Amino acid sequence: MRIVIAGIDGYLGWPLAQHLAAREHEVAGVDLFLRRRWVDEMAGVSAIPVASWDERAQYFRTRFGRELVFRAGDLCEYAVVHQLLADFRPDAIVHLGEMPSAPYSMMDVQHAVFTQQNNVVGTLNLLFALRDVTPDAHLVKLGTMGEYGTPNLDIPEGFFEVEYRGRRDTLPFPRQANSWYHLSKVHDSANVTFACRVWGLRSTDIMQGVVYGTRVEAMDLDDQRCRTRLDFDQCFGTALNRYCAQAVIGEPLSVYGSGGQKRGFLPLRDSIQCLTLALENPPARGEYRVFNQFEDVYDVATLAAKVQQVARGLGLDARITRLENPRTETEHHHYAPDHEHLLALGYQPTRDMDTELADVLADLIPHRERIAERRAVLEPDIRWSGERKKVGSLDEAAAPGTRARVQRAASGAGS
Amino acid sequence: MRIVIAGIDGYLGWPLAQHLAAREHEVAGVDLFLRRRWVDEMAGVSAIPVASWDERAQYFRTRFGRELVFRAGDLCEYAVVHQLLADFRPDAIVHLGEMPSAPYSMMDVQHAVFTQQNNVVGTLNLLFALRDVTPDAHLVKLGTMGEYGTPNLDIPEGFFEVEYRGRRDTLPFPRQANSWYHLSKVHDSANVTFACRVWGLRSTDIMQGVVYGTRVEAMDLDDQRCRTRLDFDQCFGTALNRYCAQAVIGEPLSVYGSGGQKRGFLPLRDSIQCLTLALENPPARGEYRVFNQFEDVYDVATLAAKVQQVARGLGLDARITRLENPRTETEHHHYAPDHEHLLALGYQPTRDMDTELADVLADLIPHRERIAERRAVLEPDIRWSGERKKVGSLDEAAAPGTRARVQRAASGAGS
Repeated sequence: MRIVIAGIDGYLGWPLAQHLAAREHEVAGVDLFLRRRWVDEMAGVSAIPVASWDERAQYFRTRFGRELVFRAGDLCEYAVVHQLLADFRPDAIVHLGEMPSAPYSMMDVQHAVFTQQNNVVGTLNLLFALRDVTPDAHLVKLGTMGEYGTPNLDIPEGFFEVEYRGRRDTLPFPRQANSWYHLSKVHDSANVTFACRVWGLRSTDIMQGVVYGTRVEAMDLDDQRCRTRLDFDQCFGTALNRYCAQAVIGEPLSVYGSGGQKRGFLPLRDSIQCLTLALENPPARGEYRVFNQFEDVYDVATLAAKVQQVARGLGLDARITRLENPRTETEHHHYAPDHEHLLALGYQPTRDMDTELADVLADLIPHRERIAERRAVLEPDIRWSGERKKVGSLDEAAAPGTRARVQRAASGAGS
Repeated sequence: MRIVIAGIDGYLGWPLAQHLAAREHEVAGVDLFLRRRWVDEMAGVSAIPVASWDERAQYFRTRFGRELVFRAGDLCEYAVVHQLLADFRPDAIVHLGEMPSAPYSMMDVQHAVFTQQNNVVGTLNLLFALRDVTPDAHLVKLGTMGEYGTPNLDIPEGFFEVEYRGRRDTLPFPRQANSWYHLSKVHDSANVTFACRVWGLRSTDIMQGVVYGTRVEAMDLDDQRCRTRLDFDQCFGTALNRYCAQAVIGEPLSVYGSGGQKRGFLPLRDSIQCLTLALENPPARGEYRVFNQFEDVYDVATLAAKVQQVARGLGLDARITRLENPRTETEHHHYAPDHEHLLALGYQPTRDMDTELADVLADLIPHRERIAERRAVLEPDIRWSGERKKVGSLDEAAAPGTRARVQRAASGAGS
């Protein structure tokens, strides 16, 4: 197949390009290198050094024996998107080219507006270009499990049959996102749904859980240029990335709030496997389908305990600490999302989290110094309230009266 | 109360300003006069001539004996919004400052992107300015009944209690909008909901039906400067406006498709009454409430018959014709939206549609020539498919084979 990856220089884009090339697909990419700039803006750095785009392109040529068609361009400019599709004539487009951080979007009005504008306009441009240039091509759109929020119901894959006052219909499952970023993805989902209905486009909308991991099979690990980034700053690092970075530099693993927040997780190699399954099994013309893409559900306190345990196996002794939660979010809630569609297509979960985390820690240990130099970015100060202020400790030993604060956090914030 | 009207120069904004002033409220307004430019762009014109902003401001001073604080500015510039709130310190903001046309948004990628960007960013700026300057002020946000689409269920006011797999929750009612414009309002609703939850703002989100009419009580009808606009072009004229314009110039009233499309309607004077009820009965801090704001449900074929009948009473003989539907929409569907919240606040529907339509026609008759000169704008060519092509007739007499086309239209598009 001929596949365009929007956001090919990112955390998922670069491993996906390698995986698709290894499976003999023709790959084209577009990127504006914004992820590199955003992490700079947060004073962060990828814990694992990443090659420049030119170096990546050279590696790709050498390893896969073919050119990678690439455009440095902005999805928010329609001409860029239109021209790429007209030149490359893809069978599918994987849209990973969005600003992916909730805290980044919550910083201030400028970042909120940038996030929604960038993500919504980029996706609109893709939809129009598909309609006008390659209406048969399949759009694989990266959404997030965070679009659903944490309702007190099981979460189906996109749609549910509902009975109300004696009538029945199958409707989009209500979205209750909890940041300007997550809302931008909700807006995208509504826009993509409409484009499929009115123009007969075909799309798979991936409600993805939190991805962790550093490796996929297709990487030549002897060549550093194969590596993808691993961020650990408050905006572009996930909770798991933060814990892993803390474990290797001997800082306590910092859990936000009570730690009861549950999310779905999957290893990088499984994310890439699932995106490929979606690509290789496209929906019919006019079909909009939703995949909930994750493997296991954990709460963030349990995750910290898992990292602590795996780190111990590698001789790293990690403490766990609790911080005030800078986010306004429900910390105790029902969480039982479906994830059957990908399994039905043949998704086989590869490895358990402990094995994968051991690899992540092993990959970070050589870069201890690099992480330690930037340890300040591990402390969050972007609050959902809008106030920019470092969060305090919730440890009982930390100060008198903290027991009460832990309890408030545990009951608090929610719904 | 001190009330800001965003979009004060528009169809609703100008009558609302007069109504609120007559009720002794202090009114401020912001507008960039885009509605005037958009109608120009469509080669349209207000059937009823409207005064310039300066003339309107003079009239306001004379009639109500007070200044109208006004800023010519763009809601998409945060500084404009922030400064207005800081200077005026309102108790409430009515947000009517959005691009309100579905066909305009469906023209091409530029108009789609403009619509979503303009509407979403303007609302985001308002939310941040409220948080940072006047967090106690009440945001009355104009949405549309079109956000819900036409599900096969009754439509509650914003939220519904749902049981799913044995669990219960109260969730936002799923939105299924049918144009880039309607989707922009869906995005707004999700953004406003979040801001109320996370920042404790208060908002009334008005899911408004189609408004028709030319007069409100507070207008001094002897003074032409009191008048609000009435557009009849394919983008900024509603079906009712189009029928009325056609009736007064002796053109057949053009129904799109089978005419079974049902919508909620209310007279201008009731829209203004309802907005005022929302303003004068604000929700609590942190509350996000939704009002379905309309009086009666009609299908668009029945509306044409009503206009025909009322026109006949005024000596105007109007034929009804059917056109291909340029929109992809369901033409036969269940439609039973709730509208209890406003009645509970004291909304009293004022006049039946026939009485109101007689006033509209009476107001249009003196401007026959003006409408006739622009009759070309009554013919739609913006199609939901993206193709820009004048629509054909579906009249049986028009051409051989049209019977089949009518049937296709009637069964068609749907779901």
